[in-house]
Amino acid sequence: MRLSLIACVLLAVLWSQTCWAERAAGPAEPNDFKPASSNQPGRQYPQVDSEGRVRARIAAPEAHTVLLDIGAVKYPMTKDENGVWTGDSKPQDEGFHYYQLWIDGAAVPDPGSLYFYGAGRWGSGVEVPARDQDFYALKDVPHGQIREQLYFSKSNSTMRRCFVYTPPDYDKDTSRRYPVLYLQHGGGEDETGWPNQGKTNLIMDNLIAAGKAKPFIIVMDNGTWTRARPPRGGERGRGTWPPAGWADGFKKTLLEDIIPMIDANYRTLADRPHRAMAGLSMGGMQTRVITLASPETFSHVGLFSGGSISLDDVNDAPGFKENVKLVFVSYGSRELEDRRTGGRGAFGGDPKANTDALKEAGMNAHFYVSPDTAHEWQSWRRSLHKFAPRLFQD
Amino acid sequence: MRLSLIACVLLAVLWSQTCWAERAAGPAEPNDFKPASSNQPGRQYPQVDSEGRVRARIAAPEAHTVLLDIGAVKYPMTKDENGVWTGDSKPQDEGFHYYQLWIDGAAVPDPGSLYFYGAGRWGSGVEVPARDQDFYALKDVPHGQIREQLYFSKSNSTMRRCFVYTPPDYDKDTSRRYPVLYLQHGGGEDETGWPNQGKTNLIMDNLIAAGKAKPFIIVMDNGTWTRARPPRGGERGRGTWPPAGWADGFKKTLLEDIIPMIDANYRTLADRPHRAMAGLSMGGMQTRVITLASPETFSHVGLFSGGSISLDDVNDAPGFKENVKLVFVSYGSRELEDRRTGGRGAFGGDPKANTDALKEAGMNAHFYVSPDTAHEWQSWRRSLHKFAPRLFQD
Repeated sequence: MRLSLIACVLLAVLWSQTCWAERAAGPAEPNDFKPASSNQPGRQYPQVDSEGRVRARIAAPEAHTVLLDIGAVKYPMTKDENGVWTGDSKPQDEGFHYYQLWIDGAAVPDPGSLYFYGAGRWGSGVEVPARDQDFYALKDVPHGQIREQLYFSKSNSTMRRCFVYTPPDYDKDTSRRYPVLYLQHGGGEDETGWPNQGKTNLIMDNLIAAGKAKPFIIVMDNGTWTRARPPRGGERGRGTWPPAGWADGFKKTLLEDIIPMIDANYRTLADRPHRAMAGLSMGGMQTRVITLASPETFSHVGLFSGGSISLDDVNDAPGFKENVKLVFVSYGSRELEDRRTGGRGAFGGDPKANTDALKEAGMNAHFYVSPDTAHEWQSWRRSLHKFAPRLFQD
Repeated sequence: MRLSLIACVLLAVLWSQTCWAERAAGPAEPNDFKPASSNQPGRQYPQVDSEGRVRARIAAPEAHTVLLDIGAVKYPMTKDENGVWTGDSKPQDEGFHYYQLWIDGAAVPDPGSLYFYGAGRWGSGVEVPARDQDFYALKDVPHGQIREQLYFSKSNSTMRRCFVYTPPDYDKDTSRRYPVLYLQHGGGEDETGWPNQGKTNLIMDNLIAAGKAKPFIIVMDNGTWTRARPPRGGERGRGTWPPAGWADGFKKTLLEDIIPMIDANYRTLADRPHRAMAGLSMGGMQTRVITLASPETFSHVGLFSGGSISLDDVNDAPGFKENVKLVFVSYGSRELEDRRTGGRGAFGGDPKANTDALKEAGMNAHFYVSPDTAHEWQSWRRSLHKFAPRLFQD
């Protein structure tokens, strides 16, 4: 007790000194910028400091204005005597962020970063180190494969592409069959989102190596939903936009093309108990509509920052309650803190209340909140990491 | 005879009229620009016309100078009243070209194009339609897979990545085993070169569907050769640069890590008669050095724009003549027309004379010249297309 007291006093003194030191030095900037892990090989910029500031740098000797555009804010950059521009953002949340540079009015990718598809374009991304980044680190554990699968889609009369994660031992015992998760990206993204910025294979490899998830196949296809027409007055209100039928195109492609193709070409357990669907944002909205309409097809459902399923939804979907063994709903904490959604996140309904209601009705339902993240990939990496261990457990 | 004469006269008249019409209209520009097949989804620029001109466009309202940089030439672009810059290149050769934009002194990727790794960076690429592009077109034929393979390399004490092409029926009959081609990229490129801009899977899928090539596995790894030190005076002369031992790092990785890993994880025919190596440019130089040093390991050899193998080389490599069933050497025609190499292409020796000498000595040697292409990917796509049907035929 006496020791604890002394420790408390010491900590308080240390803390006050730290605060004083920070105040004396102006804004607390750790000045420990390091190249981002998402940089192109050998590139020194962009850099990130331990508080999540992003520092960009580019040579543009004849430019008049260069801006770093990240997190919906454009930060000014300044030119040195060699024509090299440098600028810092405010601290960003942990995890992955899309960004771009503006050079005299032109929006361009940063030549220092790797490129990712999001916001409807291939562009720059930057990794802010996260306290929990170990769960998607590349380690010397048995690794599955990401396979590029080309196939002809009858319902679209065209060739399509998806990526398929096969777990580490898939090619070892060719008599074994596996469950399948259909995992969808968000709006403005495509089938490369989960394999690239989602780090799906590393999350699964690490979970499987630790014995925390059963091995299963993951199919990542392109669910891009093209609006047939712009929304009209009144349709933007809750429940009227998107209009009925908006997910029909991808639903048809998934049920008539993708699932049969996967079951024909991979060693799947091709039945409802071994088939899951999940998605983020738009992909979560698609998952909601498609699984409610097809409870004979899916037994495990995940909505990541993409709405929730209410008891009314379940009561209106015959077979859903009996067949579906897991409903998993998640959001980033900042989405729930956003006043515009009244603590509910986007896409309608109160996700926690809805999920609690499913629990009370006897369903296996889980609600997860990713700490200190927004409508961004760190929320969705964490959601997959929490969702996967709950799949195919019965 | 009389008919032929009339036909000749008619053709001459038509030809002269065509020429006159072109001259009257100024420089012959077909004005049939279309979005490049290598654009990001939905992007209208860059565009390419039927004579191979590349037209770039970017909004940069405050910029003073914007340039299109392609084929080692910087073309000026001009601004319209909306701040949108447009500029055309001279006609480019058929096939794939790396390029970039300069905005007020900053070298950046074009936001309209897909991105490819080459010249030591992820940057823009553009496809100029080729008369023979059907051989790498995406068709409704059975497709193999490109698999991302992660593995631990003992000789480098690190995790590494390669891409593995498995042919269309690989997963159908799991008792069947396949030969393997180890296929290397060029300097400043990486393991993504052959799967992306190389279109390896489409070339193979189409050849196999047409019955023109045997199905085999292709392994595309990272052969990047880091110079231990810059070249010193005299070493740049023929035969002294690169210095002895420059390929040892990748040779050790290939023989001790990559090949055993592939043989352990894929259904290979794990012997010399069923193992080939080929590469482009630096990858061809590596292929030359490694196969000459390891004729017990490889039976089929391909050098694409990467030197050739002389009879002296063969005589200095015990076992090579007996074990190697194919030596394939290729260049783009413009490489051989380049005065700086005296009709020999880069990387030493006269490739045609060297290959003829191997033939005269009784070896199965082939020399291929890609028409009207330079040290670029169209030469290497065509080289793979000509090389693959000759592999594993005995």
